[in-house]
Amino acid sequence: MATTVIWHHLFLDQLSRVNGFVCRNPMLAQASDFSLMGLNLPGNTSNPLGSAITPATVAQIPGLDTLGVSMVRIDYAPWGLNPPHIHPRATEIFTVLKGTLEVGFVTSNLENRFTSKVLQKGDVFVFPIGLIHYERNVGYGSVIAIVGSSSQNPGVITVANAVFRSKPMISGDVLAKTFQVNMTVVDAIQGKM
Amino acid sequence: MATTVIWHHLFLDQLSRVNGFVCRNPMLAQASDFSLMGLNLPGNTSNPLGSAITPATVAQIPGLDTLGVSMVRIDYAPWGLNPPHIHPRATEIFTVLKGTLEVGFVTSNLENRFTSKVLQKGDVFVFPIGLIHYERNVGYGSVIAIVGSSSQNPGVITVANAVFRSKPMISGDVLAKTFQVNMTVVDAIQGKM
Amino acid sequence: MATTVIWHHLFLDQLSRVNGFVCRNPMLAQASDFSLMGLNLPGNTSNPLGSAITPATVAQIPGLDTLGVSMVRIDYAPWGLNPPHIHPRATEIFTVLKGTLEVGFVTSNLENRFTSKVLQKGDVFVFPIGLIHYERNVGYGSVIAIVGSSSQNPGVITVANAVFRSKPMISGDVLAKTFQVNMTVVDAIQGKM
Amino acid sequence: MATTVIWHHLFLDQLSRVNGFVCRNPMLAQASDFSLMGLNLPGNTSNPLGSAITPATVAQIPGLDTLGVSMVRIDYAPWGLNPPHIHPRATEIFTVLKGTLEVGFVTSNLENRFTSKVLQKGDVFVFPIGLIHYERNVGYGSVIAIVGSSSQNPGVITVANAVFRSKPMISGDVLAKTFQVNMTVVDAIQGKM
Amino acid sequence: MATTVIWHHLFLDQLSRVNGFVCRNPMLAQASDFSLMGLNLPGNTSNPLGSAITPATVAQIPGLDTLGVSMVRIDYAPWGLNPPHIHPRATEIFTVLKGTLEVGFVTSNLENRFTSKVLQKGDVFVFPIGLIHYERNVGYGSVIAIVGSSSQNPGVITVANAVFRSKPMISGDVLAKTFQVNMTVVDAIQGKM
Amino acid sequence: MATTVIWHHLFLDQLSRVNGFVCRNPMLAQASDFSLMGLNLPGNTSNPLGSAITPATVAQIPGLDTLGVSMVRIDYAPWGLNPPHIHPRATEIFTVLKGTLEVGFVTSNLENRFTSKVLQKGDVFVFPIGLIHYERNVGYGSVIAIVGSSSQNPGVITVANAVFRSKPMISGDVLAKTFQVNMTVVDAIQGKM
Repeated sequence: MATTVIWHHLFLDQLSRVNGFVCRNPMLAQASDFSLMGLNLPGNTSNPLGSAITPATVAQIPGLDTLGVSMVRIDYAPWGLNPPHIHPRATEIFTVLKGTLEVGFVTSNLENRFTSKVLQKGDVFVFPIGLIHYERNVGYGSVIAIVGSSSQNPGVITVANAVFRSKPMISGDVLAKTFQVNMTVVDAIQGKM
Repeated sequence: MATTVIWHHLFLDQLSRVNGFVCRNPMLAQASDFSLMGLNLPGNTSNPLGSAITPATVAQIPGLDTLGVSMVRIDYAPWGLNPPHIHPRATEIFTVLKGTLEVGFVTSNLENRFTSKVLQKGDVFVFPIGLIHYERNVGYGSVIAIVGSSSQNPGVITVANAVFRSKPMISGDVLAKTFQVNMTVVDAIQGKM
Repeated sequence: MATTVIWHHLFLDQLSRVNGFVCRNPMLAQASDFSLMGLNLPGNTSNPLGSAITPATVAQIPGLDTLGVSMVRIDYAPWGLNPPHIHPRATEIFTVLKGTLEVGFVTSNLENRFTSKVLQKGDVFVFPIGLIHYERNVGYGSVIAIVGSSSQNPGVITVANAVFRSKPMISGDVLAKTFQVNMTVVDAIQGKM
Repeated sequence: MATTVIWHHLFLDQLSRVNGFVCRNPMLAQASDFSLMGLNLPGNTSNPLGSAITPATVAQIPGLDTLGVSMVRIDYAPWGLNPPHIHPRATEIFTVLKGTLEVGFVTSNLENRFTSKVLQKGDVFVFPIGLIHYERNVGYGSVIAIVGSSSQNPGVITVANAVFRSKPMISGDVLAKTFQVNMTVVDAIQGKM
Repeated sequence: MATTVIWHHLFLDQLSRVNGFVCRNPMLAQASDFSLMGLNLPGNTSNPLGSAITPATVAQIPGLDTLGVSMVRIDYAPWGLNPPHIHPRATEIFTVLKGTLEVGFVTSNLENRFTSKVLQKGDVFVFPIGLIHYERNVGYGSVIAIVGSSSQNPGVITVANAVFRSKPMISGDVLAKTFQVNMTVVDAIQGKM
Repeated sequence: MATTVIWHHLFLDQLSRVNGFVCRNPMLAQASDFSLMGLNLPGNTSNPLGSAITPATVAQIPGLDTLGVSMVRIDYAPWGLNPPHIHPRATEIFTVLKGTLEVGFVTSNLENRFTSKVLQKGDVFVFPIGLIHYERNVGYGSVIAIVGSSSQNPGVITVANAVFRSKPMISGDVLAKTFQVNMTVVDAIQGKM
């Protein structure tokens, strides 16, 4: 991981609340700590889901540390899917640069309301923090989206991976009872993934 | 919903940051705003999952508002399951009063590590905020647990409900691609639930 | 003290706001970092106050770090007292597992209102953050309570200890003026404790 | 209480996190919402403790709402005492404009360390949030201090008032056990105050 | 301004810390509360500075309230300038969709270090919260940028407007002393703007 | 810089959220970590602006770390000016100990409203966080002010220094376009400072 940089002496109270000293000499701050190249390049969507994430978070831009924001480019092949997932630490604001994208999120218990919308170029959509959501290319060409997140390190819990592909796996009888199906169905999902 | 009470003049800066005035005359504060009865009573576990939640959150105790903590009792019939879910706003600290309980949680991408443990009476376990977790009675008698949460309103996203039982439902082809199965499998889950 | 573990890469924005790097390899996270045994065991109440605290805080469970919650078991001998004290960093939610317990808290200036209640088994009570409160066994048998706190490290200021038993002691004439009594009374309290 | 004013459209994210709208038309903001007169005037110290507080908090300056700071002037007659108390929501930074002042605070359990210092004109001292502290004039003339607090509404719990003068009073036997004295001593304190 | 919507019952602890009740029935939540059209459309840069802002903040998207993020499109005519300004409540993460853009920021006292960089299509740059920064089109065609901000309501203080064009104006002699120039220079700036 | 001290074991949840361990043995805490001398001494105002700052922040008082408050003394020679500046991390509450002081602040876009007031001895004024403000001695004698800030490390961006005196300088044509003047005017300001 890249060297962590804490810029608090320059500007940040949040930081000074933390440790009150300069982690790196601000006289040595470089523009390179705050920049990144390549968000114009398409990600590789040749995968079973047909989507690709190109992140610009604190892992790529050390100067983002503690600043509470990051950016991501997402590419979707035709019918490509960014499958249901949660960002435990970030709301996303989403804009479509190219193509037609279906987006949806589900509210928490007890309602579990599903809200969806088909976005065109220039449309903006918000996924509130901590809710399950997905996006799917529903047009004939590729889709490009740019996303702003309310954390420098949003985190991702992809539901299918966490529930059916954890390491080690959750036992099949727990999942069968969870989804109220027999083991054949659970095997089908775990076996395929 | 019960009347909301904001006690900030008494003690809370968080509150005074919000609105700086007394929402309710503190001379009228009652012990009843801060108390609840009945956490000794077993919940009704006669349901397909075999578990029951008895909450003591801000919905039951209006004085909890803004105070960042709540409590829950959970009952489990033999082999009863509190299925995989997320609390988007709370870490839980969990103690077993009676019986034998398997607990597990899964970390976020990319690891998706599954950590589990079998708890006996008197054992304590922590589910960190925002992670998918479950508990299951693995003994022959009933299990009782008491849980402290780091929010007066923890929220719950039950994965099965949000993904397969939302209202309206997420379309089957999104879910089939998500779990990399054919529609028959998705139908089996949606049909059963 | 146990090794401190910061799990931020897994799930926590608060943490990433702090330092943006992984303090411990999440691949190495153990269930033991999130668990503790023995909350079923009674504490030793053979002391002048007749009460005993068994904590499950970050000092016992390193994985609780930054997670904003902890748990405590309290035992009270008959007429045992947890004397007036403040948790500067936590609200407590309290449930009685066994026995009869009188609880009370006092609001801040200018009101100084005293609110109290006698709790039975299964009752829940809330002590808001930063207020002086106490609990006392008012039945004939022992009392057991389980407490959830809104901090992994609630802190305790026991009024009698801080005012009359500090090291070194506050001078007697300050305390005499504080309580508007003569030195004989202050001596009586300091001498006894 | 004065009308509450929320200035968020002007400058405050904390506020916009709360409600996202303008509570009062910023075109109508007046300098008077941000100012107060009279901190040059001595408070009336003709009381048993010989001290007086002149506040400049959100109760006097509505524009301070949400801004996390306030100021207080304190006057002390010779040997006047600001008795042991806690600000549950604020650290104080203290400077002496005139005279000689003894200040002290006590840390929390288990140490209960008492730290004190005699301040002269121009000296600065810090009372950390949530700790019991006091100040006493130990010179022959009056003392004036100016205090900055880390809350617009610091709150005050005066130990003597909360423990021995609450309304209604805490029962004498609780206090006798608390301080490990007999009831005569408790009666002496409650009777005098 | 659009109706304010607080979605806390759905997902947000921050919100429940505020007021603990549902401001709007979540059964009535609409996708339209979370979306906006038109970020594909160029802003009108026919103004003296040659730049234009198209916001997607809480003022346009009520569902963003409390969620701590927003988005903006910025257009720059050739040599167009987004002049030195501060966002008091937000860090910005910036990506260039088209053209060549010079960006710069200045750190706080005592260093006042100026850091700048020329960005090409696909480059990302970060302006840390609270620092003076500007962007300028340094190519021959128009520039389009998309910006993510760490607040739903970032706020803007444009230095030239606040210092030389406030209503009413700051007196000329204050500004002359500030910039250590004679009144003719101040008049030149105030007269032109 | 002085050794950083984190006192969290004593009292601070904010701190324990950060790292959950004691950075310095509280048994070794000294009053000197929480105190400073000399705020009674006038600063040296023999400089072009005729004002001087004497700080009591975390840089001078290590015990202030994380406590969210600091204090400053400001001296003004006759007609001395504390020129337009921003504290990115602090609101200031200001009281005048001696003399007559004009104070003013400007709100953010789009209003840019200038609010000012002439303060006399004993008057209090508030500069909200993140707004450009200044103070100027408008009497015939010196002025002394005491300021409380809502951060232990408020930070300062002096507009003239950051815009016209950065290292290296912002290019003249950017500033000319910013202020809508010709280069001669910019040269006049940069040349003088």
